[in-house]
Amino acid sequence: MKNRPLRLFAFDIVAPAHLTAGSWRADGDEGHRYTDLEYWKGVARMLEEAGFDGIFFADTVGYHDVYQQRPDWALRDAAQFPVNDPLLLVSGMAAVTEHLGFGVTCSLTYEQPYLLARRFSTLDHLTRGRVGWNIVTSYSESAARNLGLERQLDHDERYALAEEYMEVVYKLWERSWQADAVVRDTAAATYVEPSRVHPIGHRGRYFSVPGFALCEPSPQRTPVLFQAGASSRGVAFAARHAEAVFINAVSTAQARRGVDRIRKAAMEAGRDPYDIKVIVLLTVIVAPTDEEAEAAHEAHLRHVSVEGALARFGGWTGLDLSAWDLDTPLKSMKTRGVQSLIDMFATAGPERAWTVRDIARFLGIGGTGSIVVGSPRTVAAELRRWRDEADIDGVNLSYATKPGSWRRFIDLALPELRRQGIVSPTRATGQAVTLREKLFGPGARHTAETHPATGHRATHHTPAVAAGRAGY
Amino acid sequence: MKNRPLRLFAFDIVAPAHLTAGSWRADGDEGHRYTDLEYWKGVARMLEEAGFDGIFFADTVGYHDVYQQRPDWALRDAAQFPVNDPLLLVSGMAAVTEHLGFGVTCSLTYEQPYLLARRFSTLDHLTRGRVGWNIVTSYSESAARNLGLERQLDHDERYALAEEYMEVVYKLWERSWQADAVVRDTAAATYVEPSRVHPIGHRGRYFSVPGFALCEPSPQRTPVLFQAGASSRGVAFAARHAEAVFINAVSTAQARRGVDRIRKAAMEAGRDPYDIKVIVLLTVIVAPTDEEAEAAHEAHLRHVSVEGALARFGGWTGLDLSAWDLDTPLKSMKTRGVQSLIDMFATAGPERAWTVRDIARFLGIGGTGSIVVGSPRTVAAELRRWRDEADIDGVNLSYATKPGSWRRFIDLALPELRRQGIVSPTRATGQAVTLREKLFGPGARHTAETHPATGHRATHHTPAVAAGRAGY
Repeated sequence: MKNRPLRLFAFDIVAPAHLTAGSWRADGDEGHRYTDLEYWKGVARMLEEAGFDGIFFADTVGYHDVYQQRPDWALRDAAQFPVNDPLLLVSGMAAVTEHLGFGVTCSLTYEQPYLLARRFSTLDHLTRGRVGWNIVTSYSESAARNLGLERQLDHDERYALAEEYMEVVYKLWERSWQADAVVRDTAAATYVEPSRVHPIGHRGRYFSVPGFALCEPSPQRTPVLFQAGASSRGVAFAARHAEAVFINAVSTAQARRGVDRIRKAAMEAGRDPYDIKVIVLLTVIVAPTDEEAEAAHEAHLRHVSVEGALARFGGWTGLDLSAWDLDTPLKSMKTRGVQSLIDMFATAGPERAWTVRDIARFLGIGGTGSIVVGSPRTVAAELRRWRDEADIDGVNLSYATKPGSWRRFIDLALPELRRQGIVSPTRATGQAVTLREKLFGPGARHTAETHPATGHRATHHTPAVAAGRAGY
Repeated sequence: MKNRPLRLFAFDIVAPAHLTAGSWRADGDEGHRYTDLEYWKGVARMLEEAGFDGIFFADTVGYHDVYQQRPDWALRDAAQFPVNDPLLLVSGMAAVTEHLGFGVTCSLTYEQPYLLARRFSTLDHLTRGRVGWNIVTSYSESAARNLGLERQLDHDERYALAEEYMEVVYKLWERSWQADAVVRDTAAATYVEPSRVHPIGHRGRYFSVPGFALCEPSPQRTPVLFQAGASSRGVAFAARHAEAVFINAVSTAQARRGVDRIRKAAMEAGRDPYDIKVIVLLTVIVAPTDEEAEAAHEAHLRHVSVEGALARFGGWTGLDLSAWDLDTPLKSMKTRGVQSLIDMFATAGPERAWTVRDIARFLGIGGTGSIVVGSPRTVAAELRRWRDEADIDGVNLSYATKPGSWRRFIDLALPELRRQGIVSPTRATGQAVTLREKLFGPGARHTAETHPATGHRATHHTPAVAAGRAGY
């Protein structure tokens, strides 16, 4: 599927800084305004005017305390911390936009499915169908401790719980309320026709939910489902449930392996391989010329906090690299987990002996995603290469400084990308559509026929609804 | 404390109808727009322009299924159902206002304190200190079942848990982060100074939270705390923790007994009796003349769904009145719980033999709160009487139809109330203040000296902060 336009999402977290270690130190960076609704309204308007498909929010309810076995560097570098709740920001940003989509990361570990279903239904109503859920099944040790859990569930059990969790929310979103349940018949004094609202009668290993959903069907019913798991179980889960998958990669070759694996797993799960959109994490540093962009890159590297990068790395991987000198080559380190790092970085450009410092510098801007640096034409060529070599459907744009990196991308790179058709030449105007329609085309308001949510919807809906995606 | 101006709050739920059974059937009622952010933006702007202090949202995650032992009438009459999540609406309404406060009902039964603390800190940031939490300790049986709880905790244990819960959130909001923890020192590469962020080390009977809070201090730190419990344990809890209490009463005499009880309990808990603001639930039906207002009242009564009222009543009290004919006098009913009803209604005006139908009609508009019907002058006289006889500090305005009841209150009654000083003659303009300052005056950003949250704040804060309410 070459030549298709890439979808564009901005990627952030409700914190002073996200993936770039030290971004808050750059001149003009507004990361510290993460608590300020006026700031987020401005970001929402900027992205909508530029025709971005949406903004995605990462989230965590823990903090990085693996590096040096303490959280000090996560605090000093504001490494995804302090971190506010992204769900609560959505209606504020929706209030000033009509088209922009919102993807929100939410762990299914901390909340009963009955309440999480209500939260997303509420947001899907308020945004008129512009909401997606990035399903997270894992959590940090620090989060687990503060939530009264003495230990994490083991990996396999976590996915067994996640499977049942999805079954419950599908039943609540798709099965519980018929499309024609709300009649609002004043003469008959009937707002909801009771015979059209169904208890889901769920009793499983982890959850018991006998009753019916608290919310009437929202525009999309099930929010667009995103996932980012890279383990075998994670890919199997995504192949079944995800409608879009986030990947990080240090090269197009590494990305392509991940993409092929996901598309193959989707087929094995009975779905069209392109029913899962793959969105790659990228950070773009663009300037009028390649030289100026390289200079900007160097300037950003000077802000990178090595410790901030290694604090993030520790939190993400569980590996504490503080025991080694920064110039230690990875290959000399005999520690569990390091081999997978070596394998990963082996594809990240020219062969070299990666050291701890190299990793920190690589991760320091945009985390485990790749960086694209150059003039508008260079950026366009690079994004075209990513699309064609890695077979991706969209880009999740991180930043070296915010909102400056997005601003420059919009002003400098986007016109060229649109001109070349790498991003859709026209931006959405007129009647707003749902986030699912943005990804899958007009009329695709609800999950596709082959998606596991859809079977729950079909059980008792009117034929017109069961047969197609129109109406709700 | 006579002659003080009453605070004004609007009272609603994110559902088609709240306390008035059948309000959605009235001409021009917009209750069905509860899913629509544009509707709520309009309500927010209307209340702010009129100078309301805030809007309060009730909430429930269950449905009324006691009446006839099924939920059918709750569905037919949209009796506080379907019900969306009010927390997720706040930033959308805050995005179009500067002064309006937001009180949100949230049960502490379903969520870990670590996460609830983050939700309110996030909202307090986004609203610049305009948020309050209505603490709910109870829940419906239908909610408990769908949340995987086989039974409710017993009453006493619920309050023991609630006490510990409050201790945890106070530590997170007040103790964990010093006022000077965020330094944002680019030269020193330090955003948060680690030595000024403190693990709370909480290990109790119900909760274990060793770590520190996820959020930096918000403008109010602890949101304004509201409570509505009427049992002995409920009053004791409110006396310790609440900064404002909601009451419902069928008469000023009944209200006064409740108010005296709360103020006395506050004193016994070492607080000033007026450190707890008492807000009474009222529904006002106003028209240019008393006759027109009476006619409007009669018109509303024609919409009242008797079954919708009894469905709500069943959910609130656990009493299923469907077994009795509508004309059965209460006094003839030998059922547990009925005596307290008889006692309550005994003060609701002229002595009469209350029947099931009378109760439904009384509750049918504005629930267990009283109704005030009349011309602007009559309404002013009545609100003055409520204030002086019942010693209340504010009014929580429900509606017979929405937003029409509020609209008419604003257009007709409010000018007269302001003229007479029953409501503050001027509305807030200029620099916005926090919700706590609206209730307790300039500078009262944080909990008062005698409030249990304050002790946690004082433990390590800088003297300037510990000594007064200024700064944070």
